[in-house]
Amino acid sequence: MSNQTLSRRHFLKLAGTAGVGVGLAACSPQASQVAPTATPGMAMDTQAANGNPDDMDAMHEAGVKIFLDGIGNNPAFWGTPLEYRLEDGFKIFEVTCQDVSWEIEPGKPVQAMSYNGLVPGPEIRVTEGDKVRVVVTNQMAQSTAVHFHGVLLPNNMDGVPFITQPPIKTGETFTYEFTAKNPGSHMYHSHHNAAEQVTKGLLAAFIIEPQDKAKDPAYDAEYSLILNDSGMGLTINGNSFPYTQPILARLGDKIRIRYMNEGLLIHPMHLHGIEQLVFAKDGWNLPQPYYCDTLNVAPGERWDVIVDCHTAGAWAFHCHILTHAESAHGMFGMVTALVISE
Amino acid sequence: MSNQTLSRRHFLKLAGTAGVGVGLAACSPQASQVAPTATPGMAMDTQAANGNPDDMDAMHEAGVKIFLDGIGNNPAFWGTPLEYRLEDGFKIFEVTCQDVSWEIEPGKPVQAMSYNGLVPGPEIRVTEGDKVRVVVTNQMAQSTAVHFHGVLLPNNMDGVPFITQPPIKTGETFTYEFTAKNPGSHMYHSHHNAAEQVTKGLLAAFIIEPQDKAKDPAYDAEYSLILNDSGMGLTINGNSFPYTQPILARLGDKIRIRYMNEGLLIHPMHLHGIEQLVFAKDGWNLPQPYYCDTLNVAPGERWDVIVDCHTAGAWAFHCHILTHAESAHGMFGMVTALVISE
Amino acid sequence: MSNQTLSRRHFLKLAGTAGVGVGLAACSPQASQVAPTATPGMAMDTQAANGNPDDMDAMHEAGVKIFLDGIGNNPAFWGTPLEYRLEDGFKIFEVTCQDVSWEIEPGKPVQAMSYNGLVPGPEIRVTEGDKVRVVVTNQMAQSTAVHFHGVLLPNNMDGVPFITQPPIKTGETFTYEFTAKNPGSHMYHSHHNAAEQVTKGLLAAFIIEPQDKAKDPAYDAEYSLILNDSGMGLTINGNSFPYTQPILARLGDKIRIRYMNEGLLIHPMHLHGIEQLVFAKDGWNLPQPYYCDTLNVAPGERWDVIVDCHTAGAWAFHCHILTHAESAHGMFGMVTALVISE
Repeated sequence: MSNQTLSRRHFLKLAGTAGVGVGLAACSPQASQVAPTATPGMAMDTQAANGNPDDMDAMHEAGVKIFLDGIGNNPAFWGTPLEYRLEDGFKIFEVTCQDVSWEIEPGKPVQAMSYNGLVPGPEIRVTEGDKVRVVVTNQMAQSTAVHFHGVLLPNNMDGVPFITQPPIKTGETFTYEFTAKNPGSHMYHSHHNAAEQVTKGLLAAFIIEPQDKAKDPAYDAEYSLILNDSGMGLTINGNSFPYTQPILARLGDKIRIRYMNEGLLIHPMHLHGIEQLVFAKDGWNLPQPYYCDTLNVAPGERWDVIVDCHTAGAWAFHCHILTHAESAHGMFGMVTALVISE
Repeated sequence: MSNQTLSRRHFLKLAGTAGVGVGLAACSPQASQVAPTATPGMAMDTQAANGNPDDMDAMHEAGVKIFLDGIGNNPAFWGTPLEYRLEDGFKIFEVTCQDVSWEIEPGKPVQAMSYNGLVPGPEIRVTEGDKVRVVVTNQMAQSTAVHFHGVLLPNNMDGVPFITQPPIKTGETFTYEFTAKNPGSHMYHSHHNAAEQVTKGLLAAFIIEPQDKAKDPAYDAEYSLILNDSGMGLTINGNSFPYTQPILARLGDKIRIRYMNEGLLIHPMHLHGIEQLVFAKDGWNLPQPYYCDTLNVAPGERWDVIVDCHTAGAWAFHCHILTHAESAHGMFGMVTALVISE
Repeated sequence: MSNQTLSRRHFLKLAGTAGVGVGLAACSPQASQVAPTATPGMAMDTQAANGNPDDMDAMHEAGVKIFLDGIGNNPAFWGTPLEYRLEDGFKIFEVTCQDVSWEIEPGKPVQAMSYNGLVPGPEIRVTEGDKVRVVVTNQMAQSTAVHFHGVLLPNNMDGVPFITQPPIKTGETFTYEFTAKNPGSHMYHSHHNAAEQVTKGLLAAFIIEPQDKAKDPAYDAEYSLILNDSGMGLTINGNSFPYTQPILARLGDKIRIRYMNEGLLIHPMHLHGIEQLVFAKDGWNLPQPYYCDTLNVAPGERWDVIVDCHTAGAWAFHCHILTHAESAHGMFGMVTALVISE
């Protein structure tokens, strides 16, 4: 089953079925007037909050319209797999640290630090038992080091400057080498001046697939949600609503979601309409999965859940710290959706 | 067994048994002098903290005295059930959104938004399998929409403006209709400009009782604690200590507590003296209940616990973020008590 | 097996094996120049962050060097057991509350409140079934009271002024008396003006060992990590990195860690390199332990874990709210290490 075949059209049909849909926008004179200058964004604008409710609604609508119009526009949102080459029985990944400019929304670049020019960095995915080399070259102004957060490895591969290695200075290369032992949803990120470097973008998914996939629940598709909240604003996978992408699924799909919190704050992630079956914590399967609709993800934690897409529709999906998700100007920040088509 | 028969007198007798009691206040000259001007409240007054310890103690005592004197004075504290009418096989609930003034403590009104004039709004309680209609009329200046947080329902009843419905504008009515499928402790609240509307009062309990009550642990009485922390201060059920009410129980009672966090902050709720058996998360029963004394409730989460009242006394019950519970002027905010009489 | 026999030399040998070690410092001219004036500390210095990366690295290195040089220098870091005397079948502990000056790092005294001159106070450790008296004398300027957080006891021993007892005024003594019923990791701390008194130092471990030790997992050594974050800065056991002490273990050891959060913030504690088996919450054993690498500890909570030291090395161990652990000047605050030697 390819989720790639789901398009914006499916969503619009669905939204139409639900009795609204973006067609509504055209019927609203305020929307068409306000949309060009509407700025869905972080700042709570109390003038808007106390002002004309139609203007406020139009700004809310404009944000949703941008989100809907953008479905499918950013295929990299759900992560860019890092290609590897095989050498001496090792899977070899090349990672370059770079000072870059990054747009959490179009036209608003922020100063960032990146792995291979991406925020989050490219996803490294290996299989339990793989021999792995990650060759890290530092082209940033600051020194750095890479910690494979959650991955069991030899101490000298742990990435803590002056404890397990010297920092990787500008222009230098350091090679991390280990055998992937513990399957699950892990991360790699900076462990040098990390409060700045991680929150500014040196963060990424490191996924170890189990040799025996039967140890995990079955699923049809999977998505990583990397949460960040500080140096670059409130983001999911490096983007802020309405510039996030929804998960597109079909009725009956079982979707695996990998939550990874790289920020400084908790994010209780609330999915509307469908319960979440929580089955793994930090890559370790729980002895007994349990259900919830709001999963509190603390900094450094990873949680894996299965969502059984039993009801069609466009389900809002957001951090439930409401100031991370909505202002008087509309939804922003840590908001996306799960769109289930029939 | 009626908990209503427990009165303030029971508590005073109990407190007397414990060797103190409010009679103590009369013996303290500072208390009677200071009480009239004491302001148990949020602000940490460093002058008091560095000042005369007897004055500080008197302010602490004055707050406790107000709490004790107020036992039974606010029967609405534990929630006002919303009456329904039966029509076409539906239970029909009428909810009106209103801009109101609300007192989290007497004489200190704050600008609020309310369902039917109450903060939290009235409790909607149905049974698994019930066909439900909630008819929402908006009399506020702002538009709004109602999300039934945690409730499984058709997408077009999910209450997210421009995704599943148009906003309910001033003067408009929108009818939500669904069958209550998943039992448990849920909530209904605004999903439009929610960072403002929810924290200012558009929040309430939505409880679905299971068809088969044997699926839950047995209990003698139940209480919902709706936590809020932002637009209206630090409150439990819309009130701030010393204007909260204690849970009144008898030795041997099993009490069910439904925690619901509608705020923007975590609240680790600590009950003195009795362990809490945690058995449900977000309305879903856990595969294996576990014990704790401090239960961390994150925004959007609900947790259900059973408290087995095995030891008599007046047990403090509060958020363990100490700045949410006590200042140099005494306890305030998210504090109440469990009072177990023999 | 005595962990006391592990010394700084073991660590240096280990660090040497890992290819770095403090010898590196001598090779770095920046380090020796900068170290004298380096101030590893809380403040994020943006000049350093934007400045010369070699200077920044040197400050990071200087902090680690202080940490390494300090191994074994502060044997009290892991807690000072409070001696008791036996009388009438009771174990009698004497606790004196005192205004003191406390150094979370050498030469930087802060105004503190202490039990017996220590922050955290001395550890009280008894066995399930013990009859216990804790005789508390208040020599501070403020009144106080002691709450035995998590301990099941009679209501009049619960330590809440004006609810269960009068406050203990300056110069007064109050005796708490109870039978230790529920084994586990508990705490004792102030319950009067607690937002100030606890965060300034009136906090300590209260451990009840089970009669039947077979109910807990087996372990070779145990360590309490008491977390605090407000009145006295970001500390583990009253000290801030680099003035914390590592846990010293041998390959194959099973280490029990007792987390206790006495602060106002969550602390997701991340141990590098080794998974944590979580087996108790607030002193109550979980029905089924589970694994993690980052354990979110909320205010008032205690969590017990077992760490199976399966891989040698110096493993960083810190709060994963990165601003609680690292600044542009290097690691600080809630950071320590688990050092496993072969």
